[in-house]
Amino acid sequence: MTTFLNDMFQTISERGRALLERRGLQVDRGGADLVKLCESLVSTPGEASGVAIASEVLRRYDALPPDRQVDFLRSLAEQFGADDDRLVRAIHDYMEDPNGRTAGQVHFAAEPRRQELIRRLNLAPAGTASLVSMRVQILDNLREYPELALLDEDFRHLFASWFNRGFLVLRRIDWATPASILAKIIKYEAVHQIADWEDLRRRLEPADRRCFAFFHPALVDEPLIFVEVALTPDIPASIAEVLATEREIMDPMEAKTAAFYSISNCQKGLRGISFGNFLIKQVVEDLVREAPQLETFVTLSPAPGFRDWLDRERRAEGPSAATDADRATLAALDADDWHRDAEKVQAIKRVIMPLAAHYFFRAKDDRGRPIDPVARFHLGNGARLERINWLGDVSAKGLTQARGLMVNYRYVLKDVERNHEAFANSGEIAASSHIRRQLRSNAQPQTPIPTDE
Amino acid sequence: MTTFLNDMFQTISERGRALLERRGLQVDRGGADLVKLCESLVSTPGEASGVAIASEVLRRYDALPPDRQVDFLRSLAEQFGADDDRLVRAIHDYMEDPNGRTAGQVHFAAEPRRQELIRRLNLAPAGTASLVSMRVQILDNLREYPELALLDEDFRHLFASWFNRGFLVLRRIDWATPASILAKIIKYEAVHQIADWEDLRRRLEPADRRCFAFFHPALVDEPLIFVEVALTPDIPASIAEVLATEREIMDPMEAKTAAFYSISNCQKGLRGISFGNFLIKQVVEDLVREAPQLETFVTLSPAPGFRDWLDRERRAEGPSAATDADRATLAALDADDWHRDAEKVQAIKRVIMPLAAHYFFRAKDDRGRPIDPVARFHLGNGARLERINWLGDVSAKGLTQARGLMVNYRYVLKDVERNHEAFANSGEIAASSHIRRQLRSNAQPQTPIPTDE
Amino acid sequence: MTTFLNDMFQTISERGRALLERRGLQVDRGGADLVKLCESLVSTPGEASGVAIASEVLRRYDALPPDRQVDFLRSLAEQFGADDDRLVRAIHDYMEDPNGRTAGQVHFAAEPRRQELIRRLNLAPAGTASLVSMRVQILDNLREYPELALLDEDFRHLFASWFNRGFLVLRRIDWATPASILAKIIKYEAVHQIADWEDLRRRLEPADRRCFAFFHPALVDEPLIFVEVALTPDIPASIAEVLATEREIMDPMEAKTAAFYSISNCQKGLRGISFGNFLIKQVVEDLVREAPQLETFVTLSPAPGFRDWLDRERRAEGPSAATDADRATLAALDADDWHRDAEKVQAIKRVIMPLAAHYFFRAKDDRGRPIDPVARFHLGNGARLERINWLGDVSAKGLTQARGLMVNYRYVLKDVERNHEAFANSGEIAASSHIRRQLRSNAQPQTPIPTDE
Amino acid sequence: MTTFLNDMFQTISERGRALLERRGLQVDRGGADLVKLCESLVSTPGEASGVAIASEVLRRYDALPPDRQVDFLRSLAEQFGADDDRLVRAIHDYMEDPNGRTAGQVHFAAEPRRQELIRRLNLAPAGTASLVSMRVQILDNLREYPELALLDEDFRHLFASWFNRGFLVLRRIDWATPASILAKIIKYEAVHQIADWEDLRRRLEPADRRCFAFFHPALVDEPLIFVEVALTPDIPASIAEVLATEREIMDPMEAKTAAFYSISNCQKGLRGISFGNFLIKQVVEDLVREAPQLETFVTLSPAPGFRDWLDRERRAEGPSAATDADRATLAALDADDWHRDAEKVQAIKRVIMPLAAHYFFRAKDDRGRPIDPVARFHLGNGARLERINWLGDVSAKGLTQARGLMVNYRYVLKDVERNHEAFANSGEIAASSHIRRQLRSNAQPQTPIPTDE
Repeated sequence: MTTFLNDMFQTISERGRALLERRGLQVDRGGADLVKLCESLVSTPGEASGVAIASEVLRRYDALPPDRQVDFLRSLAEQFGADDDRLVRAIHDYMEDPNGRTAGQVHFAAEPRRQELIRRLNLAPAGTASLVSMRVQILDNLREYPELALLDEDFRHLFASWFNRGFLVLRRIDWATPASILAKIIKYEAVHQIADWEDLRRRLEPADRRCFAFFHPALVDEPLIFVEVALTPDIPASIAEVLATEREIMDPMEAKTAAFYSISNCQKGLRGISFGNFLIKQVVEDLVREAPQLETFVTLSPAPGFRDWLDRERRAEGPSAATDADRATLAALDADDWHRDAEKVQAIKRVIMPLAAHYFFRAKDDRGRPIDPVARFHLGNGARLERINWLGDVSAKGLTQARGLMVNYRYVLKDVERNHEAFANSGEIAASSHIRRQLRSNAQPQTPIPTDE
Repeated sequence: MTTFLNDMFQTISERGRALLERRGLQVDRGGADLVKLCESLVSTPGEASGVAIASEVLRRYDALPPDRQVDFLRSLAEQFGADDDRLVRAIHDYMEDPNGRTAGQVHFAAEPRRQELIRRLNLAPAGTASLVSMRVQILDNLREYPELALLDEDFRHLFASWFNRGFLVLRRIDWATPASILAKIIKYEAVHQIADWEDLRRRLEPADRRCFAFFHPALVDEPLIFVEVALTPDIPASIAEVLATEREIMDPMEAKTAAFYSISNCQKGLRGISFGNFLIKQVVEDLVREAPQLETFVTLSPAPGFRDWLDRERRAEGPSAATDADRATLAALDADDWHRDAEKVQAIKRVIMPLAAHYFFRAKDDRGRPIDPVARFHLGNGARLERINWLGDVSAKGLTQARGLMVNYRYVLKDVERNHEAFANSGEIAASSHIRRQLRSNAQPQTPIPTDE
Repeated sequence: MTTFLNDMFQTISERGRALLERRGLQVDRGGADLVKLCESLVSTPGEASGVAIASEVLRRYDALPPDRQVDFLRSLAEQFGADDDRLVRAIHDYMEDPNGRTAGQVHFAAEPRRQELIRRLNLAPAGTASLVSMRVQILDNLREYPELALLDEDFRHLFASWFNRGFLVLRRIDWATPASILAKIIKYEAVHQIADWEDLRRRLEPADRRCFAFFHPALVDEPLIFVEVALTPDIPASIAEVLATEREIMDPMEAKTAAFYSISNCQKGLRGISFGNFLIKQVVEDLVREAPQLETFVTLSPAPGFRDWLDRERRAEGPSAATDADRATLAALDADDWHRDAEKVQAIKRVIMPLAAHYFFRAKDDRGRPIDPVARFHLGNGARLERINWLGDVSAKGLTQARGLMVNYRYVLKDVERNHEAFANSGEIAASSHIRRQLRSNAQPQTPIPTDE
Repeated sequence: MTTFLNDMFQTISERGRALLERRGLQVDRGGADLVKLCESLVSTPGEASGVAIASEVLRRYDALPPDRQVDFLRSLAEQFGADDDRLVRAIHDYMEDPNGRTAGQVHFAAEPRRQELIRRLNLAPAGTASLVSMRVQILDNLREYPELALLDEDFRHLFASWFNRGFLVLRRIDWATPASILAKIIKYEAVHQIADWEDLRRRLEPADRRCFAFFHPALVDEPLIFVEVALTPDIPASIAEVLATEREIMDPMEAKTAAFYSISNCQKGLRGISFGNFLIKQVVEDLVREAPQLETFVTLSPAPGFRDWLDRERRAEGPSAATDADRATLAALDADDWHRDAEKVQAIKRVIMPLAAHYFFRAKDDRGRPIDPVARFHLGNGARLERINWLGDVSAKGLTQARGLMVNYRYVLKDVERNHEAFANSGEIAASSHIRRQLRSNAQPQTPIPTDE
């Protein structure tokens, strides 16, 4: 068999080479030539050779060293824009007679040829995966080469269309999932690192644990985003109780609460395409179907911006949420192992909890949004701020980035839509009555803090 | 369980209703209201309620009577174009400083809001299938309401992106395929009708028969296009020998030829998105892998335009491919059952075969292409005209549309690319030497014939 | 690839041949030689060549004409019994010292070598299927060649062990089931014939229809037994209402009753291995899980022995369940189309219903069991006789074998066990109070009627 | 849902209890009562309550402490033998008229009721798995309670029938296999321990590694036996080169050799049911199909009995394979780390290799078989002794049990059958010419050594 197939593939390869030679593309296998190949790909009238050329482009691109790859991507950004002559003509027609048809012609004339190029590169086997990693390269070099922003916009536009929620598939991840996928779960977990396979097993195998991921049919066995869930009697207050090595496993049909304790995006190349919102809602639906007695859907989330904000408050000389007395108490935080000193911990707690409420309610970025990115995500999805947990995460990471704070955001189905709208339209933050009381009445409005998102 | 889920769905439904009421949309469930709902869908900042609204739009649309559906579609075409103010501003910026960025802004400003609407409708469960059938409605009314052309263009643009070959899945169809899919194969077969399940079984179960279809992950169990293949010792000359009820089944590992005897598109709503080209090439690859001794890949195709063309030639008063003597002979065709009279059949054959060669080589439409649509398809894919088979199809349909002619187009791997290019660039038609000899040397160039494709 | 594999298989085949030659078995490919080959198969110490020899035996057996196959089977029955010398020695030891060990030796010494032979034939690929059809041949010739009974007993013993309920797999059959399996459902349906694929579709596709089958892993895609179920509001009284071409489909979550209207055994070769009992109970469990509001589990069954019994009653001269007046009324049954005459129908009904009750309660075979085989099956499973339906089946078959009667047997979970025991131990027949009233008090005990089961 | 199902299961459970109460079995939940339950299970005429009782027996058995379990098993061995009266009658009939029918009656009368009990216990869901672990308990106590041997024989007899090769399924194990199965591969690997998941990944994921296992449909996700294979250019001489962390991965289509470097049985409860022979042959077939260029199929095997034998030779005072000079050289083996001293290693090698040849060829157990159990397995399967590898395994285990020796057994397809027969019939050992030369001509025949298999 091999001989024959080798022959055939050789033939295909030779035909490919012959084809390229007829187009004068054979000699230099580097970036410049690659651009010509792309030109050939977008300008071919039919698709006859599309698959072959697309494969060749992706193959050669993969073989380039990173800096040559970036050169190539910059060439695409610059040389595959719209056809200016055609665009100017279309604009002229539109200005003469502005209507749906002429506007449509402007739209299609203004479409950068990059988009058609990307669509045609997708013809190659496993093309989508290659395009997703091509975008990683773009994102990594966006700061240095701002011209790549144009190309990035095209990728993002097409990815948003291709990775439309209608095309995503939700799959449960459990201990019977292929190891090749589980290895990626270990790799991509971004919130509470998975130490090893035994750690993973503890998160997947027990009857009161769930994990779900979105997949796209064109990215085989590559999760896009996943969420880990603990079924619990009550709302958990610390990650340690969730991940404890020794703990009692509960009957899932007796759990009252589903706690989403970790949500990780897996594909950097799909940045800006949001899946999390859909994932949470679909998982809630699936859980209700399986265990209808569940009453509470809640997260156990980090507060990744709290420590930085608190440090600024402690340093602040003008009006601040923190009083001088607060600052004195908080000085204890500078000691090592402060969290092991029960007395200090109590003193700090009294000061820090109202400040934390302040952080979530009052601290805004320069676009008027909460400065905590996790808060922005869940509040934007329509969740409400349910509870702030003092020393919910005493791992090194938890202490460093949030002084140990963890937060529960709660999804109350009947309020999700209203919360979402109030937040989107007027920045209103839904919260439990309990947490509202934590908010100091005398806190000052604050200077906005820029966020880079 | 039911009670709980009913409650939950009721809640969702009530929330949906409450949401719509807040937006003043509840009363009229007809088309006008539907337009408002679409407005709401595209203008929502986030996706929080997107799935719910999209589902509601599709549900209500389905419930409308056909004429109200058309009204609704016309409203979309007219009211969901680009934002003219934004577009004019973008054009202004571009004319001031024409560059990639400003051209990109024109592109996005000129994008009809219909496209975003279609993308968001796709959020609904099974949304893609609904959108595909929505386009059927558009196509069916395009002639009467030309304004729908704008909307059609948007659908076609998005479908071309979504149904990119990179997202298609090739699956073998055989006798172990779910009956629900097979029922669709029976329904969609467009070339040689499948009489019943036993007929289907004869095309799928024998060891020397194959069938393959493309599927898209979002259209579950809905074939997009399929091809039926017979593995044979030689190139078959008639459909009767392929579909014979009693025939000897051959060992697939001894077949020399794979004959593609039927290719059917299944989804009218995907008209204009071409799959056939990719399907044939992929099937050839799969067959070679399975049975590497296969040497010849060939179709057994109808000639759907031949009879009409021949009738024109017979009527023609000016220069024509047919001589007066030809016409006299062909008069025999007007008799019933002419094909059962061996003597007439021989006389007609002598006249008709050169005319058929003429039909395929010389008869062009007003765009300079062969007038036979099947010829356009296979020649455009890079196949060559291999053989014309006299009385290859003596079914009522075959006699009516092609006086019984059938054609073999042959895919010679090493020539496909060259043939395709020669055809695409200069209209050159690749053919076997055998068939070239059939072509009468004295035939006149012909007046082009309009085709409606 | 082919060349290589051909070589390899040739090698295997040649090795096989060489092996047989060394044992002097090559020349005659007929039954006698086959017996030698079987001798070789059971007497080989290890399994090294077992698979090859077993395959060869089955291949040659398949190639024999039927009468030679029977000769071969008779040879097995006669020549592959226990080793008498060994058995006599074991018996001697046992009689000297009767204990578990010596009894065990008797057991193994008395085991006919046929059993080991059957186990070793099962080594061949698809061996189980071949053995099942071998038993069909045995059963078909049992009457003519009683010596085959010994062999049949060995098959039955091993099949009972291999097809133990613990190894069976229940699978739902629906419209998405592979056509190859559905074709077998059509073929094997034994109660209410499936006319064609559309008829099948009406039994599988609607939301209120179910079908389940048992499969065994070694008989791929071969159902062993299947049951068709209709979800209905009430207990159905006629098969026509269940199978109506036009009928309203109900929401399965609103059905109160699951009616088992057809149960068919598929494998004649597994006769005597009972699956039906397990199938019904497992299906009830599955249905309850899916639609917990279901309250009533009931069959709609034929009464295949009723007409014969009734005819005997009508002819009977001595004591009988039927009076002379009854007989006079029943004479109307001899007219064609009697069931279309409303007046006659009423008259007959008044007479026939009490007789039917008598038939089910009083008419016994010579082993004291109900003479109706369907009644024996369901009552033996613990169901109760729920209702007798006059003109429940007016098809030709229904009129012929039961004068149109159909019966509902009802499975009341909490009573199944008790009913079963009462029936098994004392022949007591559980029945609804309604049906008890139909039983004429003055009916005479009856002469037992032999049944051939 | 839950409420309803709970009710239903409660009902089942209550019915179960009621049923047991009627039989006076409810009070004591210990072993004695269990025996009564078993009595009830085998003596019930029908299967109506079989599933329920079988489940209850297995549930209660699992809940017993180990010593009570053993008591229960001993009771089965003693109280569920054949019915002596029936057996004596059958024997009488047979002695009167010895024929197939009467011998058959003896066979069935002599069958211990244990067998029927085991078959009925298998009715319970997951019953097969429970029975397999029940046998582990038996095997573990066989030495202490010899009466369990009777029960063990019944289990073994039924398992041999149920786990017939015809019912086994070969599945490839790779990195896409469910983690739950892979965890078992790690656990069951008995030859070269798998350190962790990364070690496992190195054995499964590279293109030149394979792993296959047999499964039985009734033991879901439980491998019965598995083999690990390395595709290599040549016959490997050491396990270190096969398992090296850093090594070059080869194209499987260029490998010439498939080396079986580890074969592990997984189910202690299936001891005595041989799968390895079938596994190797099936894997060879599968590999040839996939990579037809493979020429050599060979093992890399341990020699677990060599060190003990060598120690005996070194101590021996009478005639021995080792000379005094040999013994003097071998004294170096008593030093720690002898294998790191190049000079000693060479000297030892010269002495030990002929002794090793002697070990494999001449050293026999008291049944005349090679004393090395691995040699017995592969030679019995028809392999030949290909090569003895000095210091093929320098792990602690390898040095301890075989002084570092490893062995290649080679499966030459065309010789397998002949080798097997020669070995089985006359103890002849097939070997490469190379290895024959290693055999010292002057070695003495040896005293047989008992083996415990």
